[in-house]
Amino acid sequence: MTSVISLLTDYGLEDGYVAACHGVIIGISPESRIVDVCHLIPSGDVRRAAAILAQTIAYLPPGVHVAVVDPAGGGSRRAVAVEAGDHVFLGPDNGLLSWAIHASGGARVAYELTNEAFFLKPVSPTFHGRDLFAPVAAHLAIGRDLAELGPEIPLNRLVSLPAPTSLVQEGTAEGEVLSVDRHGNTQLSISAGDLATLGVRPGDTLVVWLGRRRVSVPFKETFAAVPPGELVAFTDSAGLVALAVNSGDASQRLGLPPGAHVRLSLVP
Amino acid sequence: MTSVISLLTDYGLEDGYVAACHGVIIGISPESRIVDVCHLIPSGDVRRAAAILAQTIAYLPPGVHVAVVDPAGGGSRRAVAVEAGDHVFLGPDNGLLSWAIHASGGARVAYELTNEAFFLKPVSPTFHGRDLFAPVAAHLAIGRDLAELGPEIPLNRLVSLPAPTSLVQEGTAEGEVLSVDRHGNTQLSISAGDLATLGVRPGDTLVVWLGRRRVSVPFKETFAAVPPGELVAFTDSAGLVALAVNSGDASQRLGLPPGAHVRLSLVP
Amino acid sequence: MTSVISLLTDYGLEDGYVAACHGVIIGISPESRIVDVCHLIPSGDVRRAAAILAQTIAYLPPGVHVAVVDPAGGGSRRAVAVEAGDHVFLGPDNGLLSWAIHASGGARVAYELTNEAFFLKPVSPTFHGRDLFAPVAAHLAIGRDLAELGPEIPLNRLVSLPAPTSLVQEGTAEGEVLSVDRHGNTQLSISAGDLATLGVRPGDTLVVWLGRRRVSVPFKETFAAVPPGELVAFTDSAGLVALAVNSGDASQRLGLPPGAHVRLSLVP
Repeated sequence: MTSVISLLTDYGLEDGYVAACHGVIIGISPESRIVDVCHLIPSGDVRRAAAILAQTIAYLPPGVHVAVVDPAGGGSRRAVAVEAGDHVFLGPDNGLLSWAIHASGGARVAYELTNEAFFLKPVSPTFHGRDLFAPVAAHLAIGRDLAELGPEIPLNRLVSLPAPTSLVQEGTAEGEVLSVDRHGNTQLSISAGDLATLGVRPGDTLVVWLGRRRVSVPFKETFAAVPPGELVAFTDSAGLVALAVNSGDASQRLGLPPGAHVRLSLVP
Repeated sequence: MTSVISLLTDYGLEDGYVAACHGVIIGISPESRIVDVCHLIPSGDVRRAAAILAQTIAYLPPGVHVAVVDPAGGGSRRAVAVEAGDHVFLGPDNGLLSWAIHASGGARVAYELTNEAFFLKPVSPTFHGRDLFAPVAAHLAIGRDLAELGPEIPLNRLVSLPAPTSLVQEGTAEGEVLSVDRHGNTQLSISAGDLATLGVRPGDTLVVWLGRRRVSVPFKETFAAVPPGELVAFTDSAGLVALAVNSGDASQRLGLPPGAHVRLSLVP
Repeated sequence: MTSVISLLTDYGLEDGYVAACHGVIIGISPESRIVDVCHLIPSGDVRRAAAILAQTIAYLPPGVHVAVVDPAGGGSRRAVAVEAGDHVFLGPDNGLLSWAIHASGGARVAYELTNEAFFLKPVSPTFHGRDLFAPVAAHLAIGRDLAELGPEIPLNRLVSLPAPTSLVQEGTAEGEVLSVDRHGNTQLSISAGDLATLGVRPGDTLVVWLGRRRVSVPFKETFAAVPPGELVAFTDSAGLVALAVNSGDASQRLGLPPGAHVRLSLVP
């Protein structure tokens, strides 16, 4: 049976780093199928990586999912394996995995990766993806047991990222810019459900508060429901509210980088 | 038997969008082999995507080829499957597929994708690649029949992109810049055959007319036939005339972005 | 048995060039597993490609490794196949392969690729990756013999790149910037062994001489051993000395692009 191993890193595509991880996996588990989730996470941006993994995991087959974005380097935090849903997640215990674990139904069991029998040796202190996570993933893929990896960790000791802020009260929904894609579509931490709570329905007009400015934006089924060049809000493919400019760049137009605070309300 | 599914999109590589499509395909058709044709099409640039698909298709194995570049979003045009040569093309009916279909010998039969039994549900209005095209491709790969996808479409109702302009008359060949690659090589819509019609042969010198300017450019077998830093015209790997600067950027040097008009003639 | 074919080029990811190579390989050898080492080598940068291949090869399974970075184009140098260690390397004979061959234990036998029976025809003079190297690699993968490819070449006639400069004398180690990764980590041609020769050990402080400037930099196990924003030297995942700024860009901070000269000594 084919096993799936996915990889998510901030290694970039301009070096051979990702290929080295592929090579290590194939060398141990030649039948594994590797899915590259993304390798262009901005350097060290744990939240961005956590959001992408959480929004993608529902579409990945059961398997072993490796995520390595680790501003602290390999020395100062433990490496973990966490079972959740049909998946095993491998990565640094810095919160990176937490949103995807939550999206997969919550952690069932977790282990610290300490069994060096599964590592490439010597383990480079700066390349745990290649020397630690890739070989462990491949060994799991060929049937080694999670419990062989190291000591079990109490689930309440796993590091979690705080959820993106999102607050619905007094007729407004507040949140932050969760991510901006290459089209400039600006995904908010406000969900379609939050808007429904406010009584907003497709066809209504929203007020978007940006600090002191306010902008009126129609809420539509898709960004293409407005003419090119115009602002629109819609429910994106992750079920979250996104601001877009049809054939344009909403993030730039509105001055909304990731992390920026946004408030929405319904035009009365 | 391994089946091949290729993917061409403007989703970029900075998100998990492409991985979600891979995951959906593998979940339905674990044996399919996925070839990523390109995911860095400039956002919404249907012509650029059409040109890349048409120039690559001859080198791809028989299979299902998914292309999704769709400035109008999923709402306003139909999704189609078109059989041509050994291939099935899936994509929005906005002309994106038309040049590749032509390059593969022309459409034999076409269907509108309406059978929701093959879709992921709910279908996000903004992510047909993941929810509609990827699962349909995977179902075709495991043996479902094209005719199950939806109603047949008369071939003359498929949307076609106008062919790139190219005109040979009175000793000149006129055309446009079809694409510029990362080396700055500037591919024209003028073919090696057009130049042969003008009597141009390797070793001759061309006049390139750029608006009012004219530049003399040697026509050679390869860009490397001139010293570094010098302009050259040659027949590129798609059989089209390209302008290049050896170890330099011809598009920048000549001020020729995609779409720019160019006229060539033979120096008498 | 699965065979591995790896690809390293400067083709970029914005065109269908890499996909065409994949398609050609799969068409001939459907069972081959393709590993993309890197396709974002700066256009024509043979040294950068040689360094990446040499630093990655130890982690790739035995197989056929294709590398195509060829500023001179296909006309002016021969194409070769070189057996070294468990690997066969294919590429232009311009030195690109030489460091990886050395890292794999040295060339055992080499052949010039002249047997057109293994090429796609016609061979485009500007796309040997697709028309020559990819099909030859695939034919090797399905069991054709190296000796069928063309005449044997004396090993001492293979083109080698000069090794990166590195000199240890009078208490200093001199070298050059070998590469800069996307995090701004600046890899030197000075090895951990060179520093050991100078008596430098983790915890010591180095003087980095940049022309007339000198900067004190702690030598640590990993970049994360210093606070964010601070300079650090460490042994990187290739066993070479790297300069980094924790959560920052050392190349920019120090004004050290690839090729720049650097001198290190131990603070007494």
